[in-house]
Amino acid sequence: MIKEMAARARRAGKALAASSYQDRQRLLNAIADRIDGGIAAIVAKNEEDVTREREAGMNESLLDRLTLNPSRVRAIASATRKVATLADPLGQAKISRRLENGLQLDQVTVPFGVVGMIYEARPNVTVDAAVILLMSGNASLLRGSSSAHLSNKYLVDLMRDVIAKEGFDPELIQLIPSSDRDSVRELLHARGDVDLVIPRGSAALIRMVVDEALVPTIETGAGVCHIFFDFSADAKKALPILVNAKTNRPSVCNAVETLLVHRSRKDDLLPDALRELTSHKVKLHCDERSLQVARSLGIEAHPASDENFHTEYGRLEINIAVVDDLDAAIAHIDRFGTKHTEAIITEDADEAKRFVSMIDAAAVMINASTRFTDGEEMGFGAEIGISNQKLHARGPMGLEAMTTTTWVVSGNGQVRS
Amino acid sequence: MIKEMAARARRAGKALAASSYQDRQRLLNAIADRIDGGIAAIVAKNEEDVTREREAGMNESLLDRLTLNPSRVRAIASATRKVATLADPLGQAKISRRLENGLQLDQVTVPFGVVGMIYEARPNVTVDAAVILLMSGNASLLRGSSSAHLSNKYLVDLMRDVIAKEGFDPELIQLIPSSDRDSVRELLHARGDVDLVIPRGSAALIRMVVDEALVPTIETGAGVCHIFFDFSADAKKALPILVNAKTNRPSVCNAVETLLVHRSRKDDLLPDALRELTSHKVKLHCDERSLQVARSLGIEAHPASDENFHTEYGRLEINIAVVDDLDAAIAHIDRFGTKHTEAIITEDADEAKRFVSMIDAAAVMINASTRFTDGEEMGFGAEIGISNQKLHARGPMGLEAMTTTTWVVSGNGQVRS
Repeated sequence: MIKEMAARARRAGKALAASSYQDRQRLLNAIADRIDGGIAAIVAKNEEDVTREREAGMNESLLDRLTLNPSRVRAIASATRKVATLADPLGQAKISRRLENGLQLDQVTVPFGVVGMIYEARPNVTVDAAVILLMSGNASLLRGSSSAHLSNKYLVDLMRDVIAKEGFDPELIQLIPSSDRDSVRELLHARGDVDLVIPRGSAALIRMVVDEALVPTIETGAGVCHIFFDFSADAKKALPILVNAKTNRPSVCNAVETLLVHRSRKDDLLPDALRELTSHKVKLHCDERSLQVARSLGIEAHPASDENFHTEYGRLEINIAVVDDLDAAIAHIDRFGTKHTEAIITEDADEAKRFVSMIDAAAVMINASTRFTDGEEMGFGAEIGISNQKLHARGPMGLEAMTTTTWVVSGNGQVRS
Repeated sequence: MIKEMAARARRAGKALAASSYQDRQRLLNAIADRIDGGIAAIVAKNEEDVTREREAGMNESLLDRLTLNPSRVRAIASATRKVATLADPLGQAKISRRLENGLQLDQVTVPFGVVGMIYEARPNVTVDAAVILLMSGNASLLRGSSSAHLSNKYLVDLMRDVIAKEGFDPELIQLIPSSDRDSVRELLHARGDVDLVIPRGSAALIRMVVDEALVPTIETGAGVCHIFFDFSADAKKALPILVNAKTNRPSVCNAVETLLVHRSRKDDLLPDALRELTSHKVKLHCDERSLQVARSLGIEAHPASDENFHTEYGRLEINIAVVDDLDAAIAHIDRFGTKHTEAIITEDADEAKRFVSMIDAAAVMINASTRFTDGEEMGFGAEIGISNQKLHARGPMGLEAMTTTTWVVSGNGQVRS
């Protein structure tokens, strides 16, 4: 089934790849208009999913992720309009040079072709991903979760209808039925038919994709992010950053999970941090040295195991450890980090520089919150996910990450000697 | 075993990643000096491999690939010196911007970390790959073929010795014993320990890597490259390009395997092409229409099957087909091509533009030989392979392709609202 869907997507994609920037802008704005004009119907259809899943016992946090209310639908339309304003990712020359033999060499951006997305719960991803892929000239095969299948189908049908009206082939966006359990595996094995698959979801989903995939994939991943308070950390920066990174939105991957404190700040900055976290109702998991400090202050804290240090909590819990120096902090991060975002709070430029050069992560923050690893914040305008891998794209992925390149070599008969 | 090798490589790599451009240049030049000073010994050691394999019945073409004579060894040293002259691939800011909240964002190039290479026969790859990886700040785990194991070990020991003398950790370059058959599989499963594996070799090797790998890989690949003579093709360009692309070096992946001819040129350009190819001793596999033409001219030709059109000959054989128009040429290439290099010979700018926009390949040539898809020719100065995939790097890979990026975000206490 995937093979046929992919073949239709590839045919449809050829015209999109050759379309003008203005045509793709027009298409996205038409989709946004249709969504804005259909809010009540979208919300009603989504309620069928929510009601069914609530009756089936889905928990409140997942139900919240599944729910589309009018303001969330308006946000989807507005994000679509935003993508339409971004610079054209296609046909950009990344390298352009004239060789001595007269050959003109241009390395230009082109779409991947057919991109698969595997994602969970949130139905807004259906539109967010599809429009980023449309704008970058790609056809998409979308595999959402069965819990959102009515919402997803409604949104996909809506987009396909607009696409046809705008003169493109509706097969540019296809929904893979979530009722077919084999379809995920089939998608991951469709080497040659599908150019790229992006999984977005739980660690278990990502692991399954890595194990199964024969097609190229971009792993979007877990974030066990650290903040290191160095010996010279300024408390006026350190404490607000810590609180922001932990409590601003604990469920996302760029939230902090572990605080490391230089031992020279064990008796001033660490106590302040413990008090601050406690006042924000953050549960504390402490190594031996920080546990002693917490207990001496009468602050409730639990011993932290290796398993704690490996955990992405996604809620108001944090690990705390005292480390001897910068090298010990780096060693801890090397062992437990997931190469997502790591922060140092320091007033010492040399320490900051060493931290940056030794840490292996998508983003390194100096005196800033880990929460800034985000497509919108970094100026991409939209993101299709945060890549946790080193190949192709690292960190937030915008339109450009959804392109590859072709060398266009123009000559007048040149041969190689 | 791989896990421990990779851990040593990662430790060694940290200092290399933080080293200066000048230090890495010095290191490469010292390796080149040592190779230049040890030609006789290298050739003697290589002769042991060649003699043993000849006695074991290796064919002449493979023996040739295995052989290091003095001029080939000098070429290895000279390629090493060339890499040392290339621009520093590390620490380059690809994006640099200041946000409204005062955050400074820099997306800078950094090494992958630990890179594995799996390659066959040719022992020059041992040095070529290792020095590109050194210059780009990466540690390497090299898995060559058992037929070259003495040569490879000698070259790796030589490089490790120079590395130690230059003050780096010799574990930067490690040879995976080719006697251990499980080592390839172990390398491909070493997710988290090895950052990237690049296979270079036969289609069977690449396929095994794709099937087995849990680590990220860059597929270097087969080249079933096409040349399309369009209706407006200029014979004075078309024929020399065809001959160059087929006969200049038939064994390499950018050689042409199939000629497509617009039906309007069946009676003038096609006969010339058949005569030209025959005079260069190229064996012809023809579709029905071109077979008729060949026979009417008394030129020996064989019927071409689908299997022929899928074949990368690597020798003086070519497929020929007559196509109705540009779209038919593109459809043929979509079906049989490997997305490596595709060429159009045309005097019509619109046809060239359509070909470029519709062909999905690493390189598209307009009135130039397919042989120009090459790192040296394209100005990279050196290549570690030609990527046949769309992710990360497409086409010839130089130093920059061996880097990934990190976002460095510098602030003075910024938090996200």
